[in-house]
Amino acid sequence: MEHVSFLPLSRFAVCGGTHGNEMSGVYMVREMQRQKADRTGSVSVTSVLSNPPAVDACRRYMETDLNRCFTDALLSGPTTDDTPYELRRGRELNAQLGPKGSREAVDLLCDIHNTTANMAVCLIFYSFDWIALHIYKYIQSKMTSAPVRALCLNEPPSEAYSLESVGKHGIAIEVGPQPTGVVRADIFNMVKEAVDLTIEWLQKFNSGSTFEGGEVEAYTPVGSVDYPRDPTTGEITAAIHPQLQDNDFKVLRPGDPVFQLFSGETVKHEGDDLYPLFVNECAYYEKKVAFKLTKKITVTLPSVGVKKD
Amino acid sequence: MEHVSFLPLSRFAVCGGTHGNEMSGVYMVREMQRQKADRTGSVSVTSVLSNPPAVDACRRYMETDLNRCFTDALLSGPTTDDTPYELRRGRELNAQLGPKGSREAVDLLCDIHNTTANMAVCLIFYSFDWIALHIYKYIQSKMTSAPVRALCLNEPPSEAYSLESVGKHGIAIEVGPQPTGVVRADIFNMVKEAVDLTIEWLQKFNSGSTFEGGEVEAYTPVGSVDYPRDPTTGEITAAIHPQLQDNDFKVLRPGDPVFQLFSGETVKHEGDDLYPLFVNECAYYEKKVAFKLTKKITVTLPSVGVKKD
Repeated sequence: MEHVSFLPLSRFAVCGGTHGNEMSGVYMVREMQRQKADRTGSVSVTSVLSNPPAVDACRRYMETDLNRCFTDALLSGPTTDDTPYELRRGRELNAQLGPKGSREAVDLLCDIHNTTANMAVCLIFYSFDWIALHIYKYIQSKMTSAPVRALCLNEPPSEAYSLESVGKHGIAIEVGPQPTGVVRADIFNMVKEAVDLTIEWLQKFNSGSTFEGGEVEAYTPVGSVDYPRDPTTGEITAAIHPQLQDNDFKVLRPGDPVFQLFSGETVKHEGDDLYPLFVNECAYYEKKVAFKLTKKITVTLPSVGVKKD
Repeated sequence: MEHVSFLPLSRFAVCGGTHGNEMSGVYMVREMQRQKADRTGSVSVTSVLSNPPAVDACRRYMETDLNRCFTDALLSGPTTDDTPYELRRGRELNAQLGPKGSREAVDLLCDIHNTTANMAVCLIFYSFDWIALHIYKYIQSKMTSAPVRALCLNEPPSEAYSLESVGKHGIAIEVGPQPTGVVRADIFNMVKEAVDLTIEWLQKFNSGSTFEGGEVEAYTPVGSVDYPRDPTTGEITAAIHPQLQDNDFKVLRPGDPVFQLFSGETVKHEGDDLYPLFVNECAYYEKKVAFKLTKKITVTLPSVGVKKD
């Protein structure tokens, strides 16, 4: 089995409020700042409220989705009077925590998100980041309060659009179900446990522990499904079917119900056996996504450890 | 036992989208309009989308809370260029469905709301409206998919601030838990069943059925509790405790946990045995209400029937 070694991972950033109405990250970051939690052993911790105006307004964003602003092209474009707030803020965050792809970037960036979907703890990262995958494996083995799963995205680094891509390694922690604008203790506790376990892993890594390789399961996107709509008005004419609602990560087979029309009829799944994610996520109505479809994959990890000089 | 008779109740209005991000009412009203459901037997049905700009923006309101605009004082004030949108819209709705307190007002107005709290079906009305209470008793006896409860408010008619007070009789149908901006089939189905049973009751009433009196349970407000806050910044420093979260209508006794501070400690209930409602309702963060406290009451109803001439 392969072994891969990395330089110490001493600079860790935790971001919240990237979407201003996803409250776990907002309150997690504020609590870390209140407790001045800026170092744990070998790890320096920076906590950042990503989008303060959107947090104040309790909105996902002010002008454009901040978590789509971190591609190389968007980060390097010109700033003018017409540049949306979030694009300007994205460049600030890149200067503070990156620059993306540089030696100066933080070693690990965790960005905290919530979903209205019943996804429990879902770690999202760009494949195949061995550090992110090992932290996922560690959290999954330690956490008992909720299932822990991983979604691997396939964009190349330059096309990676989300905040965590600014770090040398990056993980989005997506936790739900939680309504926007609301903080639930059970969901907050999951987020806190995931962050604490990440810091614990970084400490062990930096102090010379070797993390054995092995196989982990993950999901990878293959498409998405929009709501049925009125052909004239474009208005949604159905809700997610009760048999699909809250059943993220459970296999969807051809013929399984997916929508209940407001007039009463059922719409069924057509196509392959696939795994639905982000089922009835609030913010995806505007993106015309009722749920995402993924396939399950198995990833074989090398063992990892700190580079010895 | 007393008997009270009323003129026929032939004009029924259903409103949704009074809060633009509470989606059950929005989709219920749109579906009724799509199906041109404007009469059922003896009952004419008017369906109204109350706050279209807020629905389009998927926000609770644009300038001020529409559902606080229906006191006599606010309805009769002058309209100027500075009058907030919702106050102007409130006066339009009062002209269309009222005027409040007049012979021209619709006989029954049902306004559909959602809450992020686990309140199942909660009918809200001003005490003591025998028609509203009888419809509550009927829905409670027929509905099997969810518990049905009632909240009786105590404002006199002139001070009644919410849209349903425009009708001769009025009921707010509050259903949850549902995140704002999301429509869940299970919650939609509860709303539809409650509206269908209301129409069924009106039909029976108009065709001469007598509804026997008896006792019903209801809740009535005694106060509210705010979140713990940082004395300097005013920021919330706790979430509803997991033992209280989702436990609306379950008695809260002195010493029961009510908040979990983000730093980990527990805050306990002090005071009388009371019933919490609207626990962790999204829209009440800005109103500084973590939950409302109510007491349980028993109301003795007269029998009711249509007035024979």
